[in-house]
Amino acid sequence: MTPSVVLFSGGLDSTTALYWAKRRRGAVLALTFDYGQRHRVEIRMARTTAKRAGVPWTLLKVDLTQVGGSALTDPAIAVPKRSRFAHGAGGPPVTYVPFRNGVLLALAAAWAEARGAGEIITGFNVIDSPDYPDTRPAFVRAMERTINAGTRAAFTGKRFRITSPFIRLKKSEIVRIGLKLDADYSHSVSCYDGHEVPCGRCSACLLRRRAFREAGVEDPLTARLNKEGKR
Amino acid sequence: MTPSVVLFSGGLDSTTALYWAKRRRGAVLALTFDYGQRHRVEIRMARTTAKRAGVPWTLLKVDLTQVGGSALTDPAIAVPKRSRFAHGAGGPPVTYVPFRNGVLLALAAAWAEARGAGEIITGFNVIDSPDYPDTRPAFVRAMERTINAGTRAAFTGKRFRITSPFIRLKKSEIVRIGLKLDADYSHSVSCYDGHEVPCGRCSACLLRRRAFREAGVEDPLTARLNKEGKR
Repeated sequence: MTPSVVLFSGGLDSTTALYWAKRRRGAVLALTFDYGQRHRVEIRMARTTAKRAGVPWTLLKVDLTQVGGSALTDPAIAVPKRSRFAHGAGGPPVTYVPFRNGVLLALAAAWAEARGAGEIITGFNVIDSPDYPDTRPAFVRAMERTINAGTRAAFTGKRFRITSPFIRLKKSEIVRIGLKLDADYSHSVSCYDGHEVPCGRCSACLLRRRAFREAGVEDPLTARLNKEGKR
Repeated sequence: MTPSVVLFSGGLDSTTALYWAKRRRGAVLALTFDYGQRHRVEIRMARTTAKRAGVPWTLLKVDLTQVGGSALTDPAIAVPKRSRFAHGAGGPPVTYVPFRNGVLLALAAAWAEARGAGEIITGFNVIDSPDYPDTRPAFVRAMERTINAGTRAAFTGKRFRITSPFIRLKKSEIVRIGLKLDADYSHSVSCYDGHEVPCGRCSACLLRRRAFREAGVEDPLTARLNKEGKR
């Protein structure tokens, strides 16, 4: 049985995906990207979460500050506060990183191919963040087809899959699934601002707070930070 | 009019694509990748060729040695000599870099999106190298659809294009087109071995030699090297 690769930022959704993959089958590899994100703390925290989950963890680097055009990779562009819908004029929000998930999935597919893995699992979802084009079902399906056309899968006929089990779920539903799977959210970081202690005001923080409120549980990250006196 | 981005390795095909793009329309940007290729000389030579063509040149880095699995990025895997068809067992040759063009096109699309460019032009072709899955028409079409689904094009409806004018041509036909366009091949490097003076024995050298022989002209790179006493 070939391993599955989890696209693992260490946030809420991909932490749930990690535990979902673990439950479903044995061979799981966690893959995190250092893409020059402002919130680099997520890399260290992702390593901690993967370790606590007992899943082998790999970090790949691709410098998207070369590309620019986003508040997440360009220090000159501010992360909007107190606005869940910080759009550009009729387009994606300024926290959209141009075609980020296209680049990350392409690299993950290359890495998977070189290791004989036949699947990438993502925590993508669109209900709470419909304005990021690169997490939508149409994009994921097209990317899967591209991988099957552009790798050795084109010769072997052994179909490569991208599996996004939560793509049509709300964040609170994803949290509920994770809690049932005993997902460890105590080191999962969502905040765009780049600190272990969340700012509480960016769109990622606002969405996360709502998700736990709707799920009716305390955020395990907040609980840990409170306990450790970090907050 | 938005600019077009030429995926520009500095080899025979992409040099032809550069001149083809220049002839067709004004705004052209050349984009070269440092992906950790063994034949790194092509980067320096690509810069020279773009400069001689008067086209703005950008270098992006993405380290595919992290991915491995290819003779072009792993010094421990030898580049085969005297074999135009150095396959693995029923799959792509060992000089295939797992999903390389998937990664490079994804990054090029991100870079293009951040700059408002609406097209990538490639020198891909499959007649002489049918065993690289990531230069085939089916792959290119799927990648174009993926970019349109996963970038702001999904919202604007302004279609992003990948144009591969030579995809069904033989290398000798590509050379003939380039010569008509006054393409400057004197600094174009094809050899996988990583020297300005080609080894003459790898599959890339063998294909190139045949192309110029069939086109009935001396290779301008060889002519220059002879003139400069480098060969």
